[in-house]
Amino acid sequence: MALLDVQHRDPGSLARTGVLNLAHGQVRTPAFVPLATKGTIKGLEPREVAALGYDMVLGNTFHLFLAPGEELVRELGGLHEFMRWQAPIITDSGGFQVFSMGHGTVADEIKGRRAPGNPTERSGAILGIEEEGVRFRSYIDGGERFMAPETSMEVQAALGSDIALAFDECTPFHVTREYTERSTERTHRWLDRCIAWHEQHPTPGQVLYSISQGGVYEDLRRAATRHVAQTTAPGVAIGGSLGADKPQMYEVVSWATDELEKVAPEKPRHLLGIGEIDDLVRGVELGIDTFDCAMPTRIGRHGMALVPDPARRWRIDLTKGRMKHVNEPIMDDCPCPACSEGFTRAYLHYLFGAHELTALRLVTLHNLSFIARLMADLRAAVATGTLAEVAAAVRAGAAPGALASAAA
Amino acid sequence: MALLDVQHRDPGSLARTGVLNLAHGQVRTPAFVPLATKGTIKGLEPREVAALGYDMVLGNTFHLFLAPGEELVRELGGLHEFMRWQAPIITDSGGFQVFSMGHGTVADEIKGRRAPGNPTERSGAILGIEEEGVRFRSYIDGGERFMAPETSMEVQAALGSDIALAFDECTPFHVTREYTERSTERTHRWLDRCIAWHEQHPTPGQVLYSISQGGVYEDLRRAATRHVAQTTAPGVAIGGSLGADKPQMYEVVSWATDELEKVAPEKPRHLLGIGEIDDLVRGVELGIDTFDCAMPTRIGRHGMALVPDPARRWRIDLTKGRMKHVNEPIMDDCPCPACSEGFTRAYLHYLFGAHELTALRLVTLHNLSFIARLMADLRAAVATGTLAEVAAAVRAGAAPGALASAAA
Repeated sequence: MALLDVQHRDPGSLARTGVLNLAHGQVRTPAFVPLATKGTIKGLEPREVAALGYDMVLGNTFHLFLAPGEELVRELGGLHEFMRWQAPIITDSGGFQVFSMGHGTVADEIKGRRAPGNPTERSGAILGIEEEGVRFRSYIDGGERFMAPETSMEVQAALGSDIALAFDECTPFHVTREYTERSTERTHRWLDRCIAWHEQHPTPGQVLYSISQGGVYEDLRRAATRHVAQTTAPGVAIGGSLGADKPQMYEVVSWATDELEKVAPEKPRHLLGIGEIDDLVRGVELGIDTFDCAMPTRIGRHGMALVPDPARRWRIDLTKGRMKHVNEPIMDDCPCPACSEGFTRAYLHYLFGAHELTALRLVTLHNLSFIARLMADLRAAVATGTLAEVAAAVRAGAAPGALASAAA
Repeated sequence: MALLDVQHRDPGSLARTGVLNLAHGQVRTPAFVPLATKGTIKGLEPREVAALGYDMVLGNTFHLFLAPGEELVRELGGLHEFMRWQAPIITDSGGFQVFSMGHGTVADEIKGRRAPGNPTERSGAILGIEEEGVRFRSYIDGGERFMAPETSMEVQAALGSDIALAFDECTPFHVTREYTERSTERTHRWLDRCIAWHEQHPTPGQVLYSISQGGVYEDLRRAATRHVAQTTAPGVAIGGSLGADKPQMYEVVSWATDELEKVAPEKPRHLLGIGEIDDLVRGVELGIDTFDCAMPTRIGRHGMALVPDPARRWRIDLTKGRMKHVNEPIMDDCPCPACSEGFTRAYLHYLFGAHELTALRLVTLHNLSFIARLMADLRAAVATGTLAEVAAAVRAGAAPGALASAAA
């Protein structure tokens, strides 16, 4: 049985639907993967996330390494047992979090929180990046910790995820081409060490994805993608800096999937950390199989709810004063657990103002339901050869959930 | 149709089972009433609370008066519509909260946070207690507010609760007999004003309960109970100081229900703010029909879970270090949404340490499930003439849920 069983291809793009066959079950692709960063989908239970239509969640190697520690999770039966999620789990490698502490983010840079350039001066949290690995301070106890490619593999093996990701340096947007090139080469040496560790240690039921870096430089990104795709790792994730804006991000992803289509079309492709509505549509067109992103859960906890309104980036802010008297659900005819129970924008506005937990939960449920229906629409659209129409409808503000059935 | 339809009486105590017939449905008594203080059961949705077996929740007049304000709730269809709870709601009068700001609590006194005596020196929040009502500062905006008996009635009418409570001064334990006597007399004058307001204003579907004060003084408590029970208010709540310890509290409640049994046996009886496991058992024996208490939900949010262990006050603290490796549910064979899904003490310990919302929710669900099963046991025990045995079993540490069926 192939890792990815491709079932339909869109004639007008690289989009494809299929099934990822993993140790804990199947994932219908293209799929969005909600975050269970610290071993819980914040405010929800696993059965609720499964009921929304999700087949896989993402656990965070960095956070779980620091607390409760991978040994405790192993002792308690692995991450599936620990968090009571019996379907597939993908774990990131920890690279993104380790390096975020030192590099900062594009957002930091745009907001002036750090100067661009060559990240030779590390912030306090990163103590050193060496060929062997990275030394950093724990945000929990301030103690010095070390993570090497082998550490990341050991932790992910202890967690027992279905998909492990190779340990990489996630280069941010503001670094130079020269730094990106050197870093990407080191990421490739780290990938070899991850593959070697994974081959030498029993990790039943776990597959390893490589990660394509190379920044926003076309030759580097294409070469890096070809390089990692040609290793024995059976899946590929696209990571690192994808650009300063959406057109550049789509272009960078297109370089990567263009290379993947040439050298390893059968390997499943994960796009790391991307999940805005328009990004999911474009990502599917570019041939991405799985996506993870904090957006729907994180914005939900801050009172932002997803609605089919492209002009407002598909979101409304329930905390705004103009919501106070709005006696309507977040979305009309929405089947999510919040809207279908009749909770109104006015009530949610009040709950957010009163710092009531139920508000965070209801909007998180709504947002994840919205994305789940969008992904179901996109899968159905590819299967029925209507992706162009469905994608156009989503971009024009169609509500998710009815598109696929209308197109079918 | 009688407000309270008594169905069974225990031959050995004042315990009784029945049905409270309210505008939004029936409440099986004796019943525990979970708190929906600010119009939400913290972290849960109404459908979940109903699924646990609860027929009624308690909304807080004081908090909802300050935010979002009763006029907004009325505009949005009343409290049932606003919070999407379609079964009965009881609202307290606001008296307890208004006076708590000035009097402090027994707990404050025991912990030395304020001196006992005559509360002539008010804390900053209460600006004045007068015959007309109480002036106080809003904890939300610092603005001066006024609540009179008529205000409380107006707010509760706007909220549209099934049961409104009369506005009273909730006298604390540390005040003198003289203060208690004067205060109780004023509370009776306020009750007359509440009854008058309620008779003069249309409040369809809402019944008014009087409140018995009188502190811990037998003659005052008995007289106050007789007085309020003989008004036209069709139900009676027992409030105010119930003593310094459980024996005294049970004695004070017994004076009240003894009087009620003599002068108004048909009127339903609510015991305000009491809900420990042993208190519920004793309260049922003393003839209480409904109880409300913050305990199960509040302690749940702080990591305390209810277990059938009288020696530990029926609770375990999941935040303690000794829980770190305990790969077992809160309770064996517990049908609650947390235990039945297999979440372990070790996992919940970790989640509380990581400040994850799901932890608060799961333990709240467990605790409310525990209390719901206990109350079902007690109802079944009264109905089958086995209350003495069931009460003894609960006090000896029997798990709730199996008792009633075993006794039947």
